[in-house]
Order: sequence, then C-alpha cells, then structure tokens
Amino acid sequence: MKRFIIIGHRARTDGDFSLNDMPGGAGRMDVLCRCVNASFFLSHDLRRDAECYLVLLGEPDAPKTLLFRGDALRYLSPDERSAGSLIKKALALPCDEEFRESTPGVFVRRGGLEQILAAYSPAILDENGTDIRDIEELPSAYLLSDHQNFSESECAATEHLQQVSVGPAVLHADHTITVVLNEMDRRGTPSE
Amino acid sequence: MKRFIIIGHRARTDGDFSLNDMPGGAGRMDVLCRCVNASFFLSHDLRRDAECYLVLLGEPDAPKTLLFRGDALRYLSPDERSAGSLIKKALALPCDEEFRESTPGVFVRRGGLEQILAAYSPAILDENGTDIRDIEELPSAYLLSDHQNFSESECAATEHLQQVSVGPAVLHADHTITVVLNEMDRRGTPSE
Repeated sequence: MKRFIIIGHRARTDGDFSLNDMPGGAGRMDVLCRCVNASFFLSHDLRRDAECYLVLLGEPDAPKTLLFRGDALRYLSPDERSAGSLIKKALALPCDEEFRESTPGVFVRRGGLEQILAAYSPAILDENGTDIRDIEELPSAYLLSDHQNFSESECAATEHLQQVSVGPAVLHADHTITVVLNEMDRRGTPSE
Repeated sequence: MKRFIIIGHRARTDGDFSLNDMPGGAGRMDVLCRCVNASFFLSHDLRRDAECYLVLLGEPDAPKTLLFRGDALRYLSPDERSAGSLIKKALALPCDEEFRESTPGVFVRRGGLEQILAAYSPAILDENGTDIRDIEELPSAYLLSDHQNFSESECAATEHLQQVSVGPAVLHADHTITVVLNEMDRRGTPSE
C-alpha cells in the first residue's frame, strides 16, 4: 500500500465553497485537489494500491479527514474541479469519528492528524530529510503539508518520524508525491 | 535552459472556451494547464530557467503555439484556472508566425511542431525510451503528448529523436515533467 497524508491548514470543512474559487474561499483546496490527482493517476489507469488522506483544518468545522481509496475510487477525473467536486460532496455529509462513504472510494470523518498518527507512522517529507534514493527500505506512508509549513504542534507531534527528501529543490506537495511514486514504481510497492 | 513542449491534439485555438469546462469544450486544455504548472512551480518560487511550449491543434484555427517563459512570467498561480486564464488571453490575440506577448512571459504565434523541430531537437518522452537515470548527459528539451498518443505524422517527424523514459509506469504528461525536472535538479541545469 502507498499512503499520502496531506494537511490542509486552511481548507474548508464544509461543502460550502465554489469550484471556481478553490485557491481563495475554499482555503487552498486546489493544492489538495492536485495532491489527490498526483496520488492516483497513471496514464489511462488509477493506482489501485494507493490511499490519500486530506486533513482539513479550516473553517467552520475542523478537524475533518477525507480518505480517497484507490481500490474503490470512481468518478475521479484528473482536473482540479473533479477532485473538488468529490470533496464538496464528502464535506456536505454529516459525519462522526468513523469514516463514512460519500461517493465510491471517498470517505469523511471527524478528526485530524492525531487519529492518523495513532494508525500510521508516516515519513515526513522535508527538504532536510534523507534523500529518498538513499533509503534502503522505502516507507509506505508519507506526511506532507500544503502551501504552509507544518505548525509548531504538528512538528512536536511528528518529531520522532523519519524525514525524507526528494531532492535539492523544494517542491509543491503534489510534485513531491509524484517523485515519491516514481521511486516506488522503480522498486515495487511496499508490502505494509 | 529546460524546455518542455507539449502537443494538445484537440486543444482549442481561440480564447472562446470556459474555464469551468477545460476538459470538455476546451479540448483537454486542463492537461496543458497542469503541464504549465509542472514546468515552473517550486515551493514559493518559479523556475526562471524553464520554458514551456504548448502546441495547440484543435478547432478553429490550428496550429498555434503558446510559449511560457519562466524568466519573464507573471500572474501565474498554481491552480488550473490561472494557467487557463493566461491561455485564453493569449489565444484572444491576433497573431502571425512571430511570437507576440500577451501577458508578461506568455507568447503566441501561428505554427506547430514543424517550427519547433526547426529550432530544437527535443528528446521524446516514451515508455520504451532509455531510462532517464541511465542517460549520461541529459537533454535540455523534451517533447510530450497530451492524453492522446503521438499521431502517425508526428511519429514520422520525430523518429530520429532520442527516446527517454522516466520509469516503469506510464505517467500523465505533467507528472512526467515533474520527474524529469527532479532528475535535472539533481544534476544541475543543462547548459544549452
């Protein structure tokens, strides 16, 4: 399994945003839409062995977590509006601490990073980490931040985790996911 | 310099399309917008040493070529609508065979692949090519296709060019650009 977890520090937590203004009113939801795209799309195929978690920390009902599961995912096209539309539908659904499916392969629950870290020990993608090409056994889960840096409390909660870099340039989160997946493609899927 | 040339086989050649329907009415302009994003964006920066050519072959006025130049580019945000908006403005401009600037760093001209190949000998990104990690001296220019395969005439016009692969999985054009740039980042910019 390949898991990507992206924190959207200002991303709205209800479905009340416009697909025409995802960078603005939706709290940089466009960044998260591109991360969903990067996590799943192959040429004429989807990565069925991938999962993408979006941790949404914006107004008005944070924290919520969305889960996209490649083995069940439907109705996702590569354009940003397509992912945005599935996110809107998921956020319009009442939810509690258990994941609830909104459309095939898309789930929503209350809770944020704490619940994720109780289940997984992701590597943190950070420019000061170990170069991914030098890591003998690739981690299966990766934690990224949106356009903002990790907050102080997020850094404290994750300081014990492995730090991984994808190269000398500091990349957007979605580009980072693409580079990690390329390294995984070359080595074979982690078994966890 | 780093050059990416992407052929949009059905991409509209006037500005008369909706930013809300780039995968449909605009002829998969969304694919090209993502390629522009992948060519330029770094975290909190743009790649000033990159150029991105979009060869548009759709209705009603093909072929036209758009050029995005990183050293002069302004008003580009990472979301698809932002690139789409700059493309619309460029295509609304009357043009001839010389590049004409529409907004800072964005240019439009008549002409397509033939004119590109008269100026550059790009490598072709193809799953059957040589693995980019095994190439001693990286090419500075790369030719990609959108969601469609290269046409017969495009294959004939480019059969003499070097073929390069980015790994075992067949990726979308924008993801391919990201992987190529990661390899370039690790080696330093080609001097050409």
